[in-house]
Amino acid sequence: MANHVTPNKVFHDRVLYERVANEVVHLIEGGTLRAGSRVPSVRNLSNQRGVSVSTVLQAYRQLENGGWIEARPQSGYYVKSRQQRPPEPEESRPSLDITQVSTGELMMQILQDKQSANAVQLGSAIAASEHLPIKALHRALMNASKKYGADAMNYDIAPGCLRLREQIARRVLVAGCNLTPDDFVLTNGCQEALMLCLRAVTKSGDTVLIESPTYYGVLQIIESLGLNALEIPTHPRDGISLEAMEVALDGNAVAACVLSPTFNNPLGSCMSDERKKRLVETLSARDIPLIEDDIWGDTSFDNPRPHAAKAWDKNGGVMLCSSFSKTLAPGLRVGYVAAGRWKKRVEYLKTVNTLANATLPSLAVAEFLENGGYDAHLRRIRKSFAAQVQWTTNAVDHYFPAGTRVTRPRGGQVVWVEMPQNIDALQLFADAIKENISIAPGPIFSPRAKFRNFFRLNCAWHQSPEIERAFRTLGSLMARQMG
Amino acid sequence: MANHVTPNKVFHDRVLYERVANEVVHLIEGGTLRAGSRVPSVRNLSNQRGVSVSTVLQAYRQLENGGWIEARPQSGYYVKSRQQRPPEPEESRPSLDITQVSTGELMMQILQDKQSANAVQLGSAIAASEHLPIKALHRALMNASKKYGADAMNYDIAPGCLRLREQIARRVLVAGCNLTPDDFVLTNGCQEALMLCLRAVTKSGDTVLIESPTYYGVLQIIESLGLNALEIPTHPRDGISLEAMEVALDGNAVAACVLSPTFNNPLGSCMSDERKKRLVETLSARDIPLIEDDIWGDTSFDNPRPHAAKAWDKNGGVMLCSSFSKTLAPGLRVGYVAAGRWKKRVEYLKTVNTLANATLPSLAVAEFLENGGYDAHLRRIRKSFAAQVQWTTNAVDHYFPAGTRVTRPRGGQVVWVEMPQNIDALQLFADAIKENISIAPGPIFSPRAKFRNFFRLNCAWHQSPEIERAFRTLGSLMARQMG
Repeated sequence: MANHVTPNKVFHDRVLYERVANEVVHLIEGGTLRAGSRVPSVRNLSNQRGVSVSTVLQAYRQLENGGWIEARPQSGYYVKSRQQRPPEPEESRPSLDITQVSTGELMMQILQDKQSANAVQLGSAIAASEHLPIKALHRALMNASKKYGADAMNYDIAPGCLRLREQIARRVLVAGCNLTPDDFVLTNGCQEALMLCLRAVTKSGDTVLIESPTYYGVLQIIESLGLNALEIPTHPRDGISLEAMEVALDGNAVAACVLSPTFNNPLGSCMSDERKKRLVETLSARDIPLIEDDIWGDTSFDNPRPHAAKAWDKNGGVMLCSSFSKTLAPGLRVGYVAAGRWKKRVEYLKTVNTLANATLPSLAVAEFLENGGYDAHLRRIRKSFAAQVQWTTNAVDHYFPAGTRVTRPRGGQVVWVEMPQNIDALQLFADAIKENISIAPGPIFSPRAKFRNFFRLNCAWHQSPEIERAFRTLGSLMARQMG
Repeated sequence: MANHVTPNKVFHDRVLYERVANEVVHLIEGGTLRAGSRVPSVRNLSNQRGVSVSTVLQAYRQLENGGWIEARPQSGYYVKSRQQRPPEPEESRPSLDITQVSTGELMMQILQDKQSANAVQLGSAIAASEHLPIKALHRALMNASKKYGADAMNYDIAPGCLRLREQIARRVLVAGCNLTPDDFVLTNGCQEALMLCLRAVTKSGDTVLIESPTYYGVLQIIESLGLNALEIPTHPRDGISLEAMEVALDGNAVAACVLSPTFNNPLGSCMSDERKKRLVETLSARDIPLIEDDIWGDTSFDNPRPHAAKAWDKNGGVMLCSSFSKTLAPGLRVGYVAAGRWKKRVEYLKTVNTLANATLPSLAVAEFLENGGYDAHLRRIRKSFAAQVQWTTNAVDHYFPAGTRVTRPRGGQVVWVEMPQNIDALQLFADAIKENISIAPGPIFSPRAKFRNFFRLNCAWHQSPEIERAFRTLGSLMARQMG
C-alpha cells in the first residue's frame, strides 16, 4: 500500500514541521480543505504560522509522501481525493434470527488477557491518561473533599447528587434533550445504566434488538440476564438499517432495543437526525423501549455534537444512558440514565443493585462541570481523538496487508478493521498478546462470535515509539496468516 | 416503667460525673462487673480516676436512679440484676410457606421518606459521622490521589485493587477465614455483593431461604430478581432456628440461603460457633449455597469478634459478603465477596453489572488499612456503638409504654423494638416523620409486611439534645395509639 505518513513520524509535535503537517491534516479532515482544493502556498503558510519556508516545505513533503496532498507543476499543492485512502467495511449482514449470546466466556477471557499484559493498549477503549484532565480531576476531588467533609463520606442514595444532576441536565441540552435534574438517576458508569434499563423492561427469555456489531458489554448484559439477541445490519457510517429493523420487528416480538445511534462502538457509525427521528417514531409506534447508549456522543469531532435520539422522544420511551468515563476518567464510575417513563423503576433497581454510587467522585465531577473546564477539555479531547483516529487509519493503510478496510468515524476513539477474509482475528489476538500488543478481536462484538476477520483498535493510545512498532508487528502477524 | 438513666443525661461527657457513670456502665455491660457483684467503693474509684469523692457519689446516685446499681446499707453499691431491664422479643414465628416479596414499593417509599426529612436519624442504620474516621479517610484519599495520580483515575477492573484484597484477606483471619487475595472480588458495597451472589446461584422463580426478620435490602434483591422467599423463625439472641430450617429444607426446593449469622440486621442475633458449624454442614450436605452477609461482624462489642460461618466452609459453598460501609464510611462503596466455588461467575457478573468499582476509594481504604489505624478505630467504634445501643435500650425502657420489648445485641448499631400488639409501626412511622423523626417500621423487614408492631432503631445517632426529645416524642405517639 502507499507509503503514508505514519503516526509517530508526524504526530509527535516535538518537531516543528510535523506540527505544521498535522495542522494541515486537521484542515483536510475537518473539511476546511476539500479534495481538489489548493492548500495555502508555502510562503503564505510560513507567514501565517511564523515558521520558516523550509519548515513548511518539509511539512508539505511529508504530507505528499503520506498521500494527503499532491504537487501540481507551476500551481502549488492540492488536497488528494479520499478514494486513495483505505476503503471502509460494508454494512454488516448478520443472520436475521434470534440467538442466545454464546460468547460470555470468550469475552471474559479476552478482557482479562488484554488487561493482564503490560501491553501496548490497542485493545481496550480506554484513553491514555495524557488525553484526560487528571490533574484537574484530582484538584476537584480535593476541593470536594474539603468542602463536603463528612457529607462526602455518607450515602448518596438514588437518584444521587443533585448538584451533579443539575450539571448533567444542562450538558444534555447540546444533545437536543430538554430534561430536568429529576429525570436522571446516577449510576456506576454507563454499564450499570444499561443493566438497570434492561432489567427494568425485560424478563428472562425476552428478545433484545441490537446493532451488528455491538459493544461486548451489552452482549454480556444480555447473556447474564438470560435474554436473546436479534442483530440488525448496521452500516459503518449511517448506523442501523431502519429498513431491516422494521422487517425484523414485523417478524419478532422484541422487548427492547439497545442501540448506540451516535458513534456505535466499535463501528463509529452515527445516524443522521432524520434517521434518529424515524427510529424513535418507529419504536414508539410499536411501544418498544429504546435504550440509547450515548457514551460516545460528547466525543464528536464536529461541533456541536450530533443530537441524541432522545431529543425526539415524546412519550418517555427512550432511556438515555451515558457516563463521564470516556471524556473525564473511567475510574470515577460516574454514569447516569434518564429512563423516561421507567424512571421510578430504574431508581428502585439502582438502589437494589448497588444502593448508591461512591459519593466523592460525583461531587468532584459536579465541581469540575460547574467550574467550566469541561467545554475546553472536550475541545481538546475531540481534537486529539480525531487526530489519533486519523493517524491510526493511516497506519492501517501503511502497515496492514492490501485489502484491509477500516472505518472513518467522526467521533469516539476506536476504529473497526476488516482484514482479508482468510485472516483470523482470534489467532491475531493470541499472536499479538505474545508480542505485548492488545487488540479487541471481532468475535466478542457478536453474540454468535462472527466478525472472525475483524478487530477493533483503540486510537487514544499513549504516544510512544512503541505504537509504530505495534502496527508494524500487527501487519507482519497478519501477513504471516496469509501465508 | 423504671426511671432509668436516659441517653443524654449521662452520655454527653461534658459533665465529669456522667463520664464516670458511663465508665461503670461499660464495666457492667462488658461483664467485668456482674449482677450482684460489688462496684468499686467511692473512695477507690475517686483515687483510681483522679476525681473527687463527690463526683463519684453523684455518678453512683445517677446509676442508682437509672436502675444499674443499688446501695446496700453498711456494705456499698452492688450491680442490680438484668431482669429489671425491659424484656427481649421472642423468637419470630413466620408462616412457613414460600412467598413472593410484596413490599418493594413500601420499602422504597419509606426509604425515601426517611431520607428526605432533615430528621433525627433513628431510621437508617447509618452511623453519625462522629463515629467514623472521616478525617483519616480524607487524608488516605489525598495520599492515594498523590501516590497514584493517573492510575487512580483508570478502570480498576474486577476482581479489583490487589492491595485492598491483600488487606481484606488479612482482616478476615480474625473471623476465622483462611482466604487469599485471589478469593475476593471487590464490589460496590455489600449490596452489590449480595446481588451478584444471588444472581450467580438462582434463576427467576427460585426460592431463597431467609431469616425472619431480614434486612430489607435482601428482600429488595429477592423481589427484583423474581425470586421467592422462605422465612425461618429466628431468635433475637441465637439467630435462625436450625431445627425449623431443616424441616423447611425437607419440604421445599431451596436454591440459596441468605443469612446474617453474626449480628442480623435488625435483630442483632448472633449464632454460636457450634450453630454456625452445623448451619454450614447442613447446607453443604444438601448442596445449597450459603450467602453470608457479614457486614456487621467487625462491629462486635466483644473482642475478638465471633467467627463468620465461612470459617467452617470446606468446599467453597459459603459466599462471604461484607463491606466497610459500617466501620469506615458508607459513601466509599467499598464492599467485597469471597464467593467460594462461584468466584469466577461472580467476577464475571461484577464486570457485567458495573464494570468496576470507583478506583480511588479502594486505594484509600487500602492505604487506611495498611497504615494500621483500623484496629484502633474498630475499638473506638465498638465501644461507642455498645454504649449507644445500651443507652437506646434504657431510653426504650424509660420513654416507651409498658410492655415494650427490645433486643440486646452484642454487635451492630441497631435494636429491634416490639411494641404492644395494638400499636401500628407504619402509623408510628407516619406520625414520627411529621415530628422530624425517622424510624424503620417492622413491615419492611418482612416479605409479607408482617412485624406490624415492631420497628428498628438506629443507635449510632448523632449525640444531641434532640435525641432525648425524639424518644419522648416516640413514646407519646405510641401512647396516643394505645388510646
